[in-house]
Amino acid sequence: MAGSSFGTIFKITTWGESHGDGIGVVVDGCPAGIKFDEELVQAYLNRRKPGQTRYSTPRKENDSVKINSGLFEGRTTGTPISMAVYNETQRSADYSEIAGYYRPGHADFTYDAKYGFRDYRGGGRSSGRETIGRVAAGALACAFLKELGITVTAYTKSIGPIQASPTSRDTLIEKRDASPLFMPGKDASDAAEEYLNNTMKQFDSAGGIIECIVSGMPAGIGDPVFEKLDAALAKAVFSIGAVKGVEIGAGFSCAGATGSENNDAFLDIRDGHAHKATNHAGGILGGISDGSDIVLRAAVKPTPSIFKEQQTVLRDGSPVSVQVKGRHDPVIVPRAVVVVEAMTALVIADALLVNMGARMDRIREFYSFCRR
Amino acid sequence: MAGSSFGTIFKITTWGESHGDGIGVVVDGCPAGIKFDEELVQAYLNRRKPGQTRYSTPRKENDSVKINSGLFEGRTTGTPISMAVYNETQRSADYSEIAGYYRPGHADFTYDAKYGFRDYRGGGRSSGRETIGRVAAGALACAFLKELGITVTAYTKSIGPIQASPTSRDTLIEKRDASPLFMPGKDASDAAEEYLNNTMKQFDSAGGIIECIVSGMPAGIGDPVFEKLDAALAKAVFSIGAVKGVEIGAGFSCAGATGSENNDAFLDIRDGHAHKATNHAGGILGGISDGSDIVLRAAVKPTPSIFKEQQTVLRDGSPVSVQVKGRHDPVIVPRAVVVVEAMTALVIADALLVNMGARMDRIREFYSFCRR
Amino acid sequence: MAGSSFGTIFKITTWGESHGDGIGVVVDGCPAGIKFDEELVQAYLNRRKPGQTRYSTPRKENDSVKINSGLFEGRTTGTPISMAVYNETQRSADYSEIAGYYRPGHADFTYDAKYGFRDYRGGGRSSGRETIGRVAAGALACAFLKELGITVTAYTKSIGPIQASPTSRDTLIEKRDASPLFMPGKDASDAAEEYLNNTMKQFDSAGGIIECIVSGMPAGIGDPVFEKLDAALAKAVFSIGAVKGVEIGAGFSCAGATGSENNDAFLDIRDGHAHKATNHAGGILGGISDGSDIVLRAAVKPTPSIFKEQQTVLRDGSPVSVQVKGRHDPVIVPRAVVVVEAMTALVIADALLVNMGARMDRIREFYSFCRR
Amino acid sequence: MAGSSFGTIFKITTWGESHGDGIGVVVDGCPAGIKFDEELVQAYLNRRKPGQTRYSTPRKENDSVKINSGLFEGRTTGTPISMAVYNETQRSADYSEIAGYYRPGHADFTYDAKYGFRDYRGGGRSSGRETIGRVAAGALACAFLKELGITVTAYTKSIGPIQASPTSRDTLIEKRDASPLFMPGKDASDAAEEYLNNTMKQFDSAGGIIECIVSGMPAGIGDPVFEKLDAALAKAVFSIGAVKGVEIGAGFSCAGATGSENNDAFLDIRDGHAHKATNHAGGILGGISDGSDIVLRAAVKPTPSIFKEQQTVLRDGSPVSVQVKGRHDPVIVPRAVVVVEAMTALVIADALLVNMGARMDRIREFYSFCRR
Repeated sequence: MAGSSFGTIFKITTWGESHGDGIGVVVDGCPAGIKFDEELVQAYLNRRKPGQTRYSTPRKENDSVKINSGLFEGRTTGTPISMAVYNETQRSADYSEIAGYYRPGHADFTYDAKYGFRDYRGGGRSSGRETIGRVAAGALACAFLKELGITVTAYTKSIGPIQASPTSRDTLIEKRDASPLFMPGKDASDAAEEYLNNTMKQFDSAGGIIECIVSGMPAGIGDPVFEKLDAALAKAVFSIGAVKGVEIGAGFSCAGATGSENNDAFLDIRDGHAHKATNHAGGILGGISDGSDIVLRAAVKPTPSIFKEQQTVLRDGSPVSVQVKGRHDPVIVPRAVVVVEAMTALVIADALLVNMGARMDRIREFYSFCRR
Repeated sequence: MAGSSFGTIFKITTWGESHGDGIGVVVDGCPAGIKFDEELVQAYLNRRKPGQTRYSTPRKENDSVKINSGLFEGRTTGTPISMAVYNETQRSADYSEIAGYYRPGHADFTYDAKYGFRDYRGGGRSSGRETIGRVAAGALACAFLKELGITVTAYTKSIGPIQASPTSRDTLIEKRDASPLFMPGKDASDAAEEYLNNTMKQFDSAGGIIECIVSGMPAGIGDPVFEKLDAALAKAVFSIGAVKGVEIGAGFSCAGATGSENNDAFLDIRDGHAHKATNHAGGILGGISDGSDIVLRAAVKPTPSIFKEQQTVLRDGSPVSVQVKGRHDPVIVPRAVVVVEAMTALVIADALLVNMGARMDRIREFYSFCRR
Repeated sequence: MAGSSFGTIFKITTWGESHGDGIGVVVDGCPAGIKFDEELVQAYLNRRKPGQTRYSTPRKENDSVKINSGLFEGRTTGTPISMAVYNETQRSADYSEIAGYYRPGHADFTYDAKYGFRDYRGGGRSSGRETIGRVAAGALACAFLKELGITVTAYTKSIGPIQASPTSRDTLIEKRDASPLFMPGKDASDAAEEYLNNTMKQFDSAGGIIECIVSGMPAGIGDPVFEKLDAALAKAVFSIGAVKGVEIGAGFSCAGATGSENNDAFLDIRDGHAHKATNHAGGILGGISDGSDIVLRAAVKPTPSIFKEQQTVLRDGSPVSVQVKGRHDPVIVPRAVVVVEAMTALVIADALLVNMGARMDRIREFYSFCRR
Repeated sequence: MAGSSFGTIFKITTWGESHGDGIGVVVDGCPAGIKFDEELVQAYLNRRKPGQTRYSTPRKENDSVKINSGLFEGRTTGTPISMAVYNETQRSADYSEIAGYYRPGHADFTYDAKYGFRDYRGGGRSSGRETIGRVAAGALACAFLKELGITVTAYTKSIGPIQASPTSRDTLIEKRDASPLFMPGKDASDAAEEYLNNTMKQFDSAGGIIECIVSGMPAGIGDPVFEKLDAALAKAVFSIGAVKGVEIGAGFSCAGATGSENNDAFLDIRDGHAHKATNHAGGILGGISDGSDIVLRAAVKPTPSIFKEQQTVLRDGSPVSVQVKGRHDPVIVPRAVVVVEAMTALVIADALLVNMGARMDRIREFYSFCRR
């Protein structure tokens, strides 16, 4: 299937392989009149750019974005916005070895099974570089959400056994950005660095958890049954390469709770919002936003590319022992933080546009305004 | 949005409220020539039918299904298959009280926020009865999968703190069906019953975890980037009413593992499958099936309707203390087992159909055959 | 594919065969709060009901509609509206003969080619009865449009060589409904009746043209490139069984005109509308409504079922001479008038909902209102 | 809506404005293993390139295509294929005048009505240059169809009152390509040139009709009800800028025929095809291909940009008399021929992929093969 498109009204389509000419995205269905430029996208892309710390691959890539369409006089025109990051250097030589065998934990085998052959240079389409298109589109979705007073903030919740420090919303972004691992709390971040250093010494890699918070949501967004807002978020975040689990609000811990513990008492209804004593529901009830913060978490697996020796097979099935060379991140989590933000923002933006047609009274008012 | 449809080629659309005329589903895009009848659907529906044990609502509902279209001489014709369960009794009286306030943990407030008013009888469209359409369609998806040697099996993995006994694949269904809670292992099931009895005495409810296993999958199914097979499964299962988290394979536990622990070594490639030393990936790599069993788990929240007193608000926002009366399941998990199976089967069936167009060599062979 | 669904936000799914249990439709994504009931649907269905004149099949079918979901206290709730007409009599015997051969002009052969076998009773899913679902859904779309001051009116423009009389908008519906052929102008209608009587005497059938007019459209509705409003209308109307051509505004005649003849001069911009000297464009420029009436026409082929002797083949390919028995309309046009209205209304309703997300300024105003 | 995407499995997304950085397309869902390169695309693009004859705008544009992703070792990999034509020169100055008024027959007013403002340079997204993306994608669809023995051929059927000469299939392409107007038959082409020369002398423009033929179709392709193959083709072709009507087979002329004249007698069933005495149905019955040639025609309006004086309004609604300057084609038809081919090929390619899931017997065989 055409698996590279996402969204119903605010719709994106990504393209590009790690070692091709570049990576890009086309955003279609974006409302007209949003202020937007390359600088804004670049700020998001820089957060996933490699080579910034010793915990990401030392490859130097500028990842400079170019916007090719859909803007006029600094604003979106309602037509498709095409953005691309062109690859500056192509180093297929680095990857010639892996063409012959199936790397454990990677999609090498499954791409061959599906397509009959694959572009084996750097993972091709299954490379982490694929997320550049997501992040560029997410930057635009965030610009849209900002116009409605909605913010999306993700951060590193844990790396291996190390948990981020509890942090208030007010200082979350500041503390996150003070950490090379985007992990709030200096003590926690330092401990995670030490854990990572040890892992690297053993030629191994680490996993972790990313949390994402949407603030300023109107109540009433999301669609019952199959298009529940949490289900849409789950798919969006699960579609990020290394994610193996997603939960909303209390998530898996609610499986062990009782109803009286897990239910959130309603305290008040003001400004169209529900005010609740707790937020175990994570801001979504029956698949529809209740106006509280939406809170989700994603489990990210350890980088599968490790220098430690592993058993695998050649393309003909014969066994071989390998060490995956090349320059790989010892942990995916920090660079994936902005990707989780991007995917979350894309879902919320789309849901807001789709939701405008929910009620006849508001539609009537909307169109009477349009005819004035 | 039209949130009641699901799937790309094998597509379903459900309708109906808990206290309306009935609940139904239309399955479109089902291949022609599959043997199918009402008895087959009924067997699936009976697994979610209430009133079978003391751990489900004592409401007596036969939930008899009627197939209204799409079959001819006992086989599917390729045209839409419309199935419905008509409600035998309508008891709006039971629910008149809840029209006035917002039940904690329910979608009452969010439906009002979205639509401006709601059908307050028994939860309307957000009722658990909505899943009847999913299960009926899932029965058909399972019949399709069976023709390809693929089985989908879910069971109760935990209720509250009680875990199911480890069980081999061979005896899983037998042991599951021996338990009133669909929980393999007599000791585990008995302990869970005791836990539930205590919970009920406190006018409270319990949550749990459901695991689902897909066996016999061909490798190469699923689509890269946004339509990854695990992402599609996550959305499908997350769209079930009370689900708050979904994980694949090692899931959240891989966040604490290292790469060398989490990677699955490849041992052999035979019959188009990868044979691996472990299955932490849960049968999916890069969003594409590798031919191993697909394993996923869903966290199910405790039933929000509890008799225990709770704080909430009336529609005008003024506070009120309530006990939610009516006949409610003390735990959702056992009746949701077949719903998880259904949603999983629907995703797999659709992915198999979509995947047929992945490779030119196979398409060429397919169409040369069609012209003979 | 799942070919029985239509629409993006205002989405319908139809089911049912001519000789099965019934025909139905599920409308999903309809805004909440629209007054709607069975009487309103029935009025539309009665316009396509057979047996009203000697120019339609004498089969007596009441085609009584039942609404099974999605309404509460006389208004739509935003959840799926399921409507069905159950077949009162099943006369498979009438059709047993046609199981053996392929009727010329029918879909018998192509269904066999696609699905491997078919429900041969009365055309199964390719029967004209399939349009019941379209008309029921169209009645709801018209109720939605009426709330916004938009009307959709179709009529018989020609039957065989006989043209309807030119008629002003004011008297169009009145004159249409005075004709048993829904053809405005007594002289024209009488001449068409005479033409049909002659055709019937020769055991033959007639075709014709239906025109449809949308009045009260806001300007700015429709989407550039592939989702142009005229392209969407063309597909919708072309999907009606016997339609073989669709044109907008001047349509095919503009192929022979010059630019200066065909261009519509703009006279004024008022109330968000363009006022033009002519309307060769048919109310749509660049795929977007300009606020003038939308005018389209559909060419409807002659009924393929004729009693006159024809050459065809048996399922094994051997030649045979046949007379198609049974009770068939000598002309499809009059009963298809309301079907064209329905499909047009469905496209317009969906386009209006999708369009609400076109401009940031209006979205901002919309959501600031929602939070009050 | 996201109106710039097209297709279900073989899906394209286009981007770009006439005076932006370039025009491009992303093709997603294309099967892996098709031989494809830039030369192949360029051959299609050259057929719509301006400046080749005096009947197209004298602008010199090389329209050189660049393929940025989705190919490896000369074959498609199954991942998105991104293609772009970068604009070599930007001449916004040419268009500064038209920013102030609404050109008759253009989308200037409707874009303003929809989006609140527009990129007024050369029509922005509503420019004919938008079709570059369609043609590039169509070249790939044609490469796919060629592997299955299917060809798509369009030609100029008429320009103004001049009809192309009747031509056999064998010589159609040769005769078409011998004409600067892509109009088969030297006499016809010469007469059309003379007609155009006269039209140009009067500062006016001409319309015409394009016919397109699909040969080598398997029977059984297309989906009943809303996704009928003819309906999908109608939408695809109607979405091309200047198209105002589409018909299949006998089209509008069947409205005046009788059933006995219009029905195509079946003669034989061989190799999965129906062989018929005539082809008034245009190769499609009940929305499904019958294996005969598919024949469709599109009516193309005269170029709206004419130098002849016209009445229109400024953006504030005040009247003004204008002559549309700039370098415009006096007739759109010849350059649109390849665009009709492209859109037709895209529909057929998608329908073939979608159809693979129609029958259980073939699915079973397909997957048993995949597991070998």
